[in-house]
Amino acid sequence: MKVRLPLSALVAGERTLDEAARHYAFRVLRLTDGDPFVAFDPDRALEASGTVLESTQGRVKLEPPHEALIRAAREILWVQGGAKGEKMDAVVRDATELGATGFCGARTERSLLKLDGKKAEERRSRWERIAREAARQSGRGDGVTVLPWMGWQDALAAAPPGAARFCAWEGATTPLGPLLQPALLTNCPLAFAAGPEGGLTEGEAADAEAAGWTLVSLGVFLLRTETVAAAVLGAVRVFTPL
Amino acid sequence: MKVRLPLSALVAGERTLDEAARHYAFRVLRLTDGDPFVAFDPDRALEASGTVLESTQGRVKLEPPHEALIRAAREILWVQGGAKGEKMDAVVRDATELGATGFCGARTERSLLKLDGKKAEERRSRWERIAREAARQSGRGDGVTVLPWMGWQDALAAAPPGAARFCAWEGATTPLGPLLQPALLTNCPLAFAAGPEGGLTEGEAADAEAAGWTLVSLGVFLLRTETVAAAVLGAVRVFTPL
Repeated sequence: MKVRLPLSALVAGERTLDEAARHYAFRVLRLTDGDPFVAFDPDRALEASGTVLESTQGRVKLEPPHEALIRAAREILWVQGGAKGEKMDAVVRDATELGATGFCGARTERSLLKLDGKKAEERRSRWERIAREAARQSGRGDGVTVLPWMGWQDALAAAPPGAARFCAWEGATTPLGPLLQPALLTNCPLAFAAGPEGGLTEGEAADAEAAGWTLVSLGVFLLRTETVAAAVLGAVRVFTPL
Repeated sequence: MKVRLPLSALVAGERTLDEAARHYAFRVLRLTDGDPFVAFDPDRALEASGTVLESTQGRVKLEPPHEALIRAAREILWVQGGAKGEKMDAVVRDATELGATGFCGARTERSLLKLDGKKAEERRSRWERIAREAARQSGRGDGVTVLPWMGWQDALAAAPPGAARFCAWEGATTPLGPLLQPALLTNCPLAFAAGPEGGLTEGEAADAEAAGWTLVSLGVFLLRTETVAAAVLGAVRVFTPL
């Protein structure tokens, strides 16, 4: 696979890269004069073939951009109850790699992650950066929309219209598989939600049901909250007909 | 769920806990006199109900042990090409939580993890500790067998007899899902293998095929090596009929 360079505002022709793109192209990717690469804009799901003209000047040339070839096949929102430390970062990374198109961090009763207005915006920017980097690493041409940090009820309402909605909950007895399978045979959007480390309260589970989400069990072993996204989105990926 | 205390050599009656078990029971789990708990021996998949008699003395009482109620439903081996840093630890943790019964770290051509005799044994002990802890956290009554660090060919030969064998490979075009689905409807053992960060060589992929493994694709997005186990074992878990 050709190396992939994230760039915004793709247009055909010559351009001088900005400082950050230069660093990435010539220090990280070690591109040199004459090297081909693929420039991509995950936000617009566009790609363009490129060639390095003069690395010392940061000059490159782009061909006309076209729709990204490698992109998520369906809309998938992951709602994650706010968890501590680097767990949210890990979930954003896994979800991006495994095909989510939207990520929403949600404030729940037992969330150990507390974010006020400014911190919430900073964290959202961080998740956006992580998603962008994960998209690049996985070769995805499209990006993940990171929604603002919001309350549980608002996050439940953020599911794409027409989405099949599943909320993982310890107290649930309905297994996810048999309900997910028919949805995978269609192109319908999907939405999943998982609680933070301490799980969802009964009230929050009831909120999910009231908002049209099905409470589902992931089996008899307890999963750490940061494993749920990889496990569930892995299942979606493995069992999505190609 | 009652708190779970890992203990070896479970027998009915009173006993004095050793230093490590005391620390875990009274400092970490914060059990106090009269508290009930479940003692479990993941290596033998046994459990026993217990009660704290005198925490200051480390005295507890156990009921007769019985077979662990929560245990893996089938044999699943995960073979992981040796990867750097903490990635192997993460894979052991995820695999345990998601129901693997065996883990094998394998030396491959592009493995950045290099282990000689003594280091290999130390690392194996570390993975055993991590698996034990992950089993405890997930409420599993049984344990994961950590095989010795070995070469790729030997690891391929370590699949349980009669196992359906799948090796994830970037160069493969056959999707895993349709092949995995029929296997999930039986109780047959499963074996999965994944390469290290740099992937498997064509020669290693050919070795896998020669050893009866099917080379499978996990889709168009590249996965980091440390995500593969969670994604694949998540798929097994979600789509295993309960």
